[in-house]
Amino acid sequence: MADTQRKLMVQKYGGTSVADAARFRAVAARIKESRGLCDGLAVVVSAMAGETNRLLDLAKGVSGFSYERELDVLLASGEQVAAALLTMALIDNGVPAVSLLGDQVRIATDSSFGRARIKSIDVTRVEEVFAQGAVAVVAGFQGVDADHNITTLGRGGSDMSAVALAAALGAGLCEIYTDVAGVFTTDPRICPRAVKLNRISYDEMLELAGVGARVLQTRSVECASRYRVPVHVRSSFSDEEGTWVVPEDQIMEEVLVSGVAYERDEAKVTVHGLPDSPGLAASVFGALADAGVVVDMIVQTATIGEDDRTDITFTVGNKDLDKAIEIMNGVASKVGARDVISSNEVGKVSVVGLGMRNHAGVASRMFRVLADEGINIQMISTSEIKISVIVDAALVDKAVNALHKTFINGGATGTQAG
Amino acid sequence: MADTQRKLMVQKYGGTSVADAARFRAVAARIKESRGLCDGLAVVVSAMAGETNRLLDLAKGVSGFSYERELDVLLASGEQVAAALLTMALIDNGVPAVSLLGDQVRIATDSSFGRARIKSIDVTRVEEVFAQGAVAVVAGFQGVDADHNITTLGRGGSDMSAVALAAALGAGLCEIYTDVAGVFTTDPRICPRAVKLNRISYDEMLELAGVGARVLQTRSVECASRYRVPVHVRSSFSDEEGTWVVPEDQIMEEVLVSGVAYERDEAKVTVHGLPDSPGLAASVFGALADAGVVVDMIVQTATIGEDDRTDITFTVGNKDLDKAIEIMNGVASKVGARDVISSNEVGKVSVVGLGMRNHAGVASRMFRVLADEGINIQMISTSEIKISVIVDAALVDKAVNALHKTFINGGATGTQAG
Repeated sequence: MADTQRKLMVQKYGGTSVADAARFRAVAARIKESRGLCDGLAVVVSAMAGETNRLLDLAKGVSGFSYERELDVLLASGEQVAAALLTMALIDNGVPAVSLLGDQVRIATDSSFGRARIKSIDVTRVEEVFAQGAVAVVAGFQGVDADHNITTLGRGGSDMSAVALAAALGAGLCEIYTDVAGVFTTDPRICPRAVKLNRISYDEMLELAGVGARVLQTRSVECASRYRVPVHVRSSFSDEEGTWVVPEDQIMEEVLVSGVAYERDEAKVTVHGLPDSPGLAASVFGALADAGVVVDMIVQTATIGEDDRTDITFTVGNKDLDKAIEIMNGVASKVGARDVISSNEVGKVSVVGLGMRNHAGVASRMFRVLADEGINIQMISTSEIKISVIVDAALVDKAVNALHKTFINGGATGTQAG
Repeated sequence: MADTQRKLMVQKYGGTSVADAARFRAVAARIKESRGLCDGLAVVVSAMAGETNRLLDLAKGVSGFSYERELDVLLASGEQVAAALLTMALIDNGVPAVSLLGDQVRIATDSSFGRARIKSIDVTRVEEVFAQGAVAVVAGFQGVDADHNITTLGRGGSDMSAVALAAALGAGLCEIYTDVAGVFTTDPRICPRAVKLNRISYDEMLELAGVGARVLQTRSVECASRYRVPVHVRSSFSDEEGTWVVPEDQIMEEVLVSGVAYERDEAKVTVHGLPDSPGLAASVFGALADAGVVVDMIVQTATIGEDDRTDITFTVGNKDLDKAIEIMNGVASKVGARDVISSNEVGKVSVVGLGMRNHAGVASRMFRVLADEGINIQMISTSEIKISVIVDAALVDKAVNALHKTFINGGATGTQAG
């Protein structure tokens, strides 16, 4: 019974939060304060800012190619160093602490080196540390597979470590400390009127990936959503509240649009005059998937005219455009399509909000705003809580600002940014 | 049956051997050549030169005090990085290789952080790597205790890792690659006529600690001796043969003196006029041992005169002198000794050789040489294969050169240096 009353907390500090000795000491002081707020505190730490690049440079020096298993052994050392240093800084500040690496915790993953997925976390050792009255300092980003090989969790993996650990511990709160004040309605660098969101649902956070992924790794949001872990994204450089990422039923006031996301590095490919037959889309996108090309938006135009031909347009990341064109040329000649055309001069702009589910008219209002700005819409895609459009890459900033002004600065979504 | 025919080899590369990317590639090329010489090759690697100091500086920045457990987590990352990089360099050079850390091997130690002792090595994983036809690249210096805490083996610990692994594998050879050509008859920096030894017994190597410990960690020699592991100490910067450290029965030609060792940082303490009684020495040296002071030479003069008083003189490391004096003053006033006097202006010079066991006259010849040079002998201590004297610190170089000229350059001990 007593156990269910325990308040456990997980905090995660990113690389800029532990960039140098002074920052380690500052973080240690913050952790010392947080201890009083809970019965058990686990701190997940990333490698010091710059360390991962330093290690990658060493690897480039010795070898022309990246060997995944060994790269993980190399990179995991960065979090190991940070965990040891933070633990020292804590003990030095009078806070009992014990560092734990991925295999000590233990964080069990699959064997996909460089992008491993967590399968389970055994919190026995962390609980032992709590029982000693100490803080568990856990090396982020790393795990261990069934054969005791070191694995790493991919970009932003320490977020995943933190949220998964919070879920495994049944922690009531996961704080993600970073170098920004929280999640913003859009990117403040291109829209000065962007405001910090006080609360956002997991789903909105996922749909805002283009904005939000810079703050919180997507997979960690999915994990938080599945286990209903409340996440508080905030700055380690101030005491200000950040953004709470929480279950939808904890969002009091549903706003129509919570954010405007964008993606610049998009490219568009159209296959013209495909003979329309069952299985056509499967063969087109199967070929892309086999080549590891991730497709974002897909639009297929209705078949018009007597010859039963159709057009398929899709977007991919810019870096995959050449590969996609090559594959589509192969498909086109195989099935007898007329033409493959492409453009890497496009970008995607999306508005996201839970309120769309219950309120009609967001789409038409969005299209009207863009039309008024003279921005031509090349593609449209919608999901339950998001509407995305593809526009000329040069007009992305203009579109974001216009939509933000209409949907957010018009309403009351958050507090005004800095 | 087939198994007993297998030829296994362990190589160890120190920090200067892997100081930068070019060195990693050079070492990888050397390992590639060595593969053909055996059926299984394990390579133990130290942290890159300078890395340990870099990590210690980081620790100093975050914390005013060294916390042993966390210091080991921090420092072990150095060998982890080196092991990953060397493995990459090997694969890049067409040599299949797998890195293994202390807990992966696994190298089980006690829990004495910073100076852990190896209790056992489970070679299962190393044998699996051999079975794949790959080189096992083992992070040196590190192990893991019964609770899965990372431990380190202390200064020169990678030598210990290599020799212990060779013993556990039943390897026929352990090659220690370093930045010197082998073990010399004395320190070439103070005696230009020093020569490289071709072969030396484990016991001689241990007695030459003052010279040899700079090349090969003492504990690793003890381990090699116990398990009869032949050790070849050689340079990673050339293809020249180095020095073989082998069982005594493999020394063909017993030489009278194989080396001249010296130690500068010695201090001498004399307690005068101790009332001679049983248990006296025990109380004197028990007090020093309790304080962690390592005593080297001990001389007790015979009791002369009617009042049954005796003098005890011993040497300690210079750094322990103040502590030793304080303890001796306590002992002196307790047991009623007359006086405690000390000097830190002394050094030790030793001649070492298996041949002494069967040939008389080495001691008298040694004392004659020193007398001829006008060097006063302050203390004498002998073991089966070593004679050590304490002399004025300023005369150490002179003594080494004179003894080396007489006992070594006179005979045929090794090949001329450089």
